[in-house]
Amino acid sequence: MKRINIGLLGLGNIGTGTYKVLELNRKRIEDTTGLDLRITRILEIDTERDRGFTVPPGVFTQDPEAVFGDPDIDIVIELLGGVEPASSFMASAMNAGKSVVTANKAAIAKNYEMLTETAATNNVKFRFEASVGGGIPLIGAITDHLCANEFTEMLGILNGTTNFILTKMSEEGNAYDDVLKEAQELGFAEADPTADVEGYDVANKLSILMSLVFGKRVKPEDIPTKGISAITKAEMDEAAKEGCVIKLIASAYSKDDGAFECSVQPTWLNKAHPLADVRNEFNALFIKGNAVDDLMFYGKGAGPFPTASAVLGDVIVIARAL
Amino acid sequence: MKRINIGLLGLGNIGTGTYKVLELNRKRIEDTTGLDLRITRILEIDTERDRGFTVPPGVFTQDPEAVFGDPDIDIVIELLGGVEPASSFMASAMNAGKSVVTANKAAIAKNYEMLTETAATNNVKFRFEASVGGGIPLIGAITDHLCANEFTEMLGILNGTTNFILTKMSEEGNAYDDVLKEAQELGFAEADPTADVEGYDVANKLSILMSLVFGKRVKPEDIPTKGISAITKAEMDEAAKEGCVIKLIASAYSKDDGAFECSVQPTWLNKAHPLADVRNEFNALFIKGNAVDDLMFYGKGAGPFPTASAVLGDVIVIARAL
Repeated sequence: MKRINIGLLGLGNIGTGTYKVLELNRKRIEDTTGLDLRITRILEIDTERDRGFTVPPGVFTQDPEAVFGDPDIDIVIELLGGVEPASSFMASAMNAGKSVVTANKAAIAKNYEMLTETAATNNVKFRFEASVGGGIPLIGAITDHLCANEFTEMLGILNGTTNFILTKMSEEGNAYDDVLKEAQELGFAEADPTADVEGYDVANKLSILMSLVFGKRVKPEDIPTKGISAITKAEMDEAAKEGCVIKLIASAYSKDDGAFECSVQPTWLNKAHPLADVRNEFNALFIKGNAVDDLMFYGKGAGPFPTASAVLGDVIVIARAL
Repeated sequence: MKRINIGLLGLGNIGTGTYKVLELNRKRIEDTTGLDLRITRILEIDTERDRGFTVPPGVFTQDPEAVFGDPDIDIVIELLGGVEPASSFMASAMNAGKSVVTANKAAIAKNYEMLTETAATNNVKFRFEASVGGGIPLIGAITDHLCANEFTEMLGILNGTTNFILTKMSEEGNAYDDVLKEAQELGFAEADPTADVEGYDVANKLSILMSLVFGKRVKPEDIPTKGISAITKAEMDEAAKEGCVIKLIASAYSKDDGAFECSVQPTWLNKAHPLADVRNEFNALFIKGNAVDDLMFYGKGAGPFPTASAVLGDVIVIARAL
């Protein structure tokens, strides 16, 4: 059994889910990978909240240097969210020789070059499967198993909140404002839903995918982005009459002259398209490679447990190679 | 650039596709992985056929020992098909210290223990993404990125021939025999379609997935298997009346007492099920993990180029770790 010590930055919803999934599936992980994964440091201010498990004494710290400076820690998981201090913490961890796993799409979309270059300079791994599509293993597929393809096209439903709202509007005929309120009550939308409904969250994710799929760095603010807040019931009905559904689609195409086109916008999809049936809070990525042809990945794009699945998957891939 | 020498066993349809995709996407592979992948030996009797490219002098051989015994070869790709001599050749390659990649579902389903144990004994890698679901990167996802899950359920459409036939029967109202003939003319079914239409091909694939997903070895001949040749137009119509479609489904469930149930059989699926919309020659795997929840992978389950995508993906994963 190979022992791997992990420093965890942040024990909020996702951090708590990650801790729980690691304990819940410890035996399966040990049996299939031979890895003994241990969270030995947790950077977190709120040490008192009842999370349903007991953190052993000495694990909590409020000093980030106690994580980066711990020579026994192999991998740092960053689950603080937000651009800063998360980005600086990830760089510090890598400069201290730790590999880093994160779910933080905002930090990666903003600081992609800095983070990937810091990882390369320090010869450590930097993985971020959970930043796009939650638990769906699409980044790993693109960076590992589909490397023998040139990609020509991708279309994604990459935000569960907006897909939930559009599904309810389409299937129940309700107006945007009413469905948004329902989504907020069910916990599928935040009190301030701007980042989701205006498409900014999806632009962050598309920016990350552009780098991986096309090797093309496009900042989120440079992606033409339109959200769903102006979609009316009348437009929904019109689309349905034409055999279509409206989805918030992140799209990117390579063009013959080597240029790329990308956008985030509400899009009419024919009901026969594989993405048209992706309902409620589910996410999906449709991608076309010149060898593999059409592929689609479908699953839960958010939530503590699906996100934990992706975070721990990254940890396992890194730990196996250590 | 890291140079990796590859020995290829078999230059038939899939071998030819693999050779072509490697040349077509050589620059993309080099740029994204830093790997210079070279096929330096090809075991093949038919050296004269026009395959659309020229194999350099000295690469073709009719002596398997010229591949296994070549100290410069790092990875052997087995694309001969059939249980023997493919299985013995793979074991010989591993005993000679080579990692092995194969697309050969029949050989793996038959000799899973021998092949995985030979790989472990020799401390070499053995990967077989292309053996299930063609180009869809589902084995890599299960063995790498989803390792932090206990799986409880999987349902797959894992044979393109039968899915093509069932789609045409369902959508065009034609009888089984007529659609089979059409599929044979289009190249989607073989002259002797028994292995496909009677479900034996799917049983091989389900046997492989059972080992990976549940860590449970079930021989293909021990999986209750029923094909599609007895499905009538009347049964299709009856299913449609109930809001269902009939698909040839490979299924496996873990039960509360730790036991497993698995089968290959025509199954009525509600039209709202994500697998119900998988049409024509496409394949898909629906799988449920206790962290990630519902996932689906969808794509082309066969064909030289999609299969080559999976074979070369395995080669790249192995080569990176060499």
